Amino acid sequence: MSSEPLLEQLIDSLRCLPGVGPKSAQRMALHLLERDRDGGKTLSAVLAESMERIGRCRECRNLTEDETCSICANEQRDRDQLCIVESPSDVIAIEHATGFRGRYFVLMGRLSPLDGIGPEELGLEQLAEQLGQRPPQEMIIATNPTVEGEATAFYLQRMAQKHGISVSRIAHGVPLGGELEFTDQSTIAHAFSSRLAI
Amino acid sequence: MSSEPLLEQLIDSLRCLPGVGPKSAQRMALHLLERDRDGGKTLSAVLAESMERIGRCRECRNLTEDETCSICANEQRDRDQLCIVESPSDVIAIEHATGFRGRYFVLMGRLSPLDGIGPEELGLEQLAEQLGQRPPQEMIIATNPTVEGEATAFYLQRMAQKHGISVSRIAHGVPLGGELEFTDQSTIAHAFSSRLAI
Repeated sequence: MSSEPLLEQLIDSLRCLPGVGPKSAQRMALHLLERDRDGGKTLSAVLAESMERIGRCRECRNLTEDETCSICANEQRDRDQLCIVESPSDVIAIEHATGFRGRYFVLMGRLSPLDGIGPEELGLEQLAEQLGQRPPQEMIIATNPTVEGEATAFYLQRMAQKHGISVSRIAHGVPLGGELEFTDQSTIAHAFSSRLAI
Repeated sequence: MSSEPLLEQLIDSLRCLPGVGPKSAQRMALHLLERDRDGGKTLSAVLAESMERIGRCRECRNLTEDETCSICANEQRDRDQLCIVESPSDVIAIEHATGFRGRYFVLMGRLSPLDGIGPEELGLEQLAEQLGQRPPQEMIIATNPTVEGEATAFYLQRMAQKHGISVSRIAHGVPLGGELEFTDQSTIAHAFSSRLAI
């Protein structure tokens, strides 16, 4: 450790958090020191353990401190449905919002050849192996509706078809509670062309 | 530690930081895990040390890990000017913005009898002792221009006068770069009545 005062070191290190600038870092440091030392101690301990022990699940590549994550280790979860997402936060979002009881595969990114992210970086070989050994009935593609996300979805679709697995893609359109007036043009265009008979 | 997955524990503990809700905590946790494990480890170490070791300076009550803070320990700092502030962040702000070479006294609050904060909680007895033993020539009152801050300033002014110390208060008015049109009424009224001859 340097000889800078500890308080300044603390403010500096808090800036490694995303969205935290000098002013917020200072506010956080003083808040912990003046009002919540216990919270700060707990955070420090959990943080140290997390940075040390959290790795990737052997099966789905999600973040976990065990060899396989709690979802993959849960025998109750349906092996016939496999949902492919870009990141661990997508798993959290789907788990919170839906009653999905199948399994996941976490790409930890999306195909982006210009950034050097190809099928290998996304663990697609591992996925192909899993699809070959124990194919699910349905692959649900939940990558984001961006250019790279769509390219990744297309690639995944081809993989699934090669193994004779039926593929679905989560719906994109006007969000519930949204208003047409305030929805962006491309979403409206997509929603319009993907209209469903009722 | 509980048997919750470490990732969830990490997200939970990040919420002890002020202004961090569930979404930001999740974003912070994933950012550290996916992109900045070294930053996370450093933060954890500095945090543990800070929560354990940072206390108050014996002389000025500011936060420090030593017996006396770096400002009080610095013999170059002028003993003839004493600036009274409400909190450690005020010391940081004044140190950054001005060339002040005197010393500080940090109240760690402001007089607020309704909240049970009286002279004792603000260390004013300790201050009175210091003023008696080694009176500075000037006391600069830099409490905030709120109702409680003004009451505190008035109390401090009386203390200084009792010891025959001259008192000043930092100026309040329209901020530099501000425009009258967008300045609140009470600031304009104060600036108007405190006008200086030029």
